Amino acid sequence: MNLILLFQDDFIHNTDRVLLRGRRFRHVLEVHRASIGDELSVGLLNDRIGTGRIVTISDTSLDMDVRFDCAPPQALPVTLILALPRPKVVRRVLRSASALGVKRIILLNCSRVEKSFWQSPFLTQEAINEQLVLGLEQSRDTILPEVLLRPLFKPFVEDELPGMREGTLSFVAHPMAAEPCPRNIGRAVTLAVGPEGGFIPYEIEKLLACGFTLISLGERILSVETAVPALLSRLF
Amino acid sequence: MNLILLFQDDFIHNTDRVLLRGRRFRHVLEVHRASIGDELSVGLLNDRIGTGRIVTISDTSLDMDVRFDCAPPQALPVTLILALPRPKVVRRVLRSASALGVKRIILLNCSRVEKSFWQSPFLTQEAINEQLVLGLEQSRDTILPEVLLRPLFKPFVEDELPGMREGTLSFVAHPMAAEPCPRNIGRAVTLAVGPEGGFIPYEIEKLLACGFTLISLGERILSVETAVPALLSRLF
Repeated sequence: MNLILLFQDDFIHNTDRVLLRGRRFRHVLEVHRASIGDELSVGLLNDRIGTGRIVTISDTSLDMDVRFDCAPPQALPVTLILALPRPKVVRRVLRSASALGVKRIILLNCSRVEKSFWQSPFLTQEAINEQLVLGLEQSRDTILPEVLLRPLFKPFVEDELPGMREGTLSFVAHPMAAEPCPRNIGRAVTLAVGPEGGFIPYEIEKLLACGFTLISLGERILSVETAVPALLSRLF
Repeated sequence: MNLILLFQDDFIHNTDRVLLRGRRFRHVLEVHRASIGDELSVGLLNDRIGTGRIVTISDTSLDMDVRFDCAPPQALPVTLILALPRPKVVRRVLRSASALGVKRIILLNCSRVEKSFWQSPFLTQEAINEQLVLGLEQSRDTILPEVLLRPLFKPFVEDELPGMREGTLSFVAHPMAAEPCPRNIGRAVTLAVGPEGGFIPYEIEKLLACGFTLISLGERILSVETAVPALLSRLF
């Protein structure tokens, strides 16, 4: 936790003082080993970042006086479309994408996604937000990404994706593609990453018909966890 | 498993036929759902890649006739020095670095590495190789990376690192660095990545004295799992 993310209901009514309990309280004590008077990086959800100075510490909570004076880091101008990964992996990928500055993530069904993945308890809004917040705390950001679940491939690609990708360069990461992933592109991007085993030909055709281009990071097939930071770091 | 990695002792004496049991056998049946006559990607450890054709399947094993006709993917010209991550993370980072084509990895102690991490059962040669092999199978490579454990920072940096980094560009990934991570560098690199919380100033000084330059991926602090693919994908 390189930044303590604060929410409106952490504030003591009409003050600049917040009260932390639970996970964040324990982290400040056990990991930061902070004591009264120490200053820590804080950020207000969907708002600015700044500093919190610890005022009191009890057995179960602490108070901090906070001030916000700085914009959070720039977001990546990308919409990330991911074939829904395995439950264990989806948590790490959400955390990592959130840390990297992605602000819109679509979890999409496709042929090689196992149906059971959609039943995962990690796909509740609460579980998703937990991972997104961990990513923000890691990278000192405050802007919560939006995650959309799209359990039907065809209506998403036909009806929703054309509007969503408008004005962006749209790429499908595909190990067989001839075109290498562009570097430092300086444009807004819509990036689709397939499941283990890849998109099937029908899905590739639908994405090409929607205006996507196939790009590759080389002949190595990477897991989605490795591919996402590798692709984003090369594109931006 | 996008490639089945084969070892010399998989071969039936003096033939081009291999016998698979255990994990690889089950994977071929359960994930590839392969049957007799099917062809699968195979590779010989530290050697070429090719194709295996399934000849027989029993309840506990299968035979494949294999031929090797292709070089494995190119390695990344990098030595990756990682402050030893938490045990859970070290497994994923080794797998990911192996998949990305890193062929030499140093796991280094430093001030902010918890001493207990060095007692992890994931640091036995067998446990390390297991992760490296999973990475190779993921990215269809055969060349097993070398992993060196260096539980003493100072003697490593003073005595061993100068020779190791000779002829390479040497970088420390450091969120506070002014210099951005170079792109598509086309040179051999030695890359050091610090622990959670970063290298301490003394360690940074030692690395600078050894000829390293500080580079940054931007103001976001990334976890080592996210930083490694992001750094390698930008450098190469």
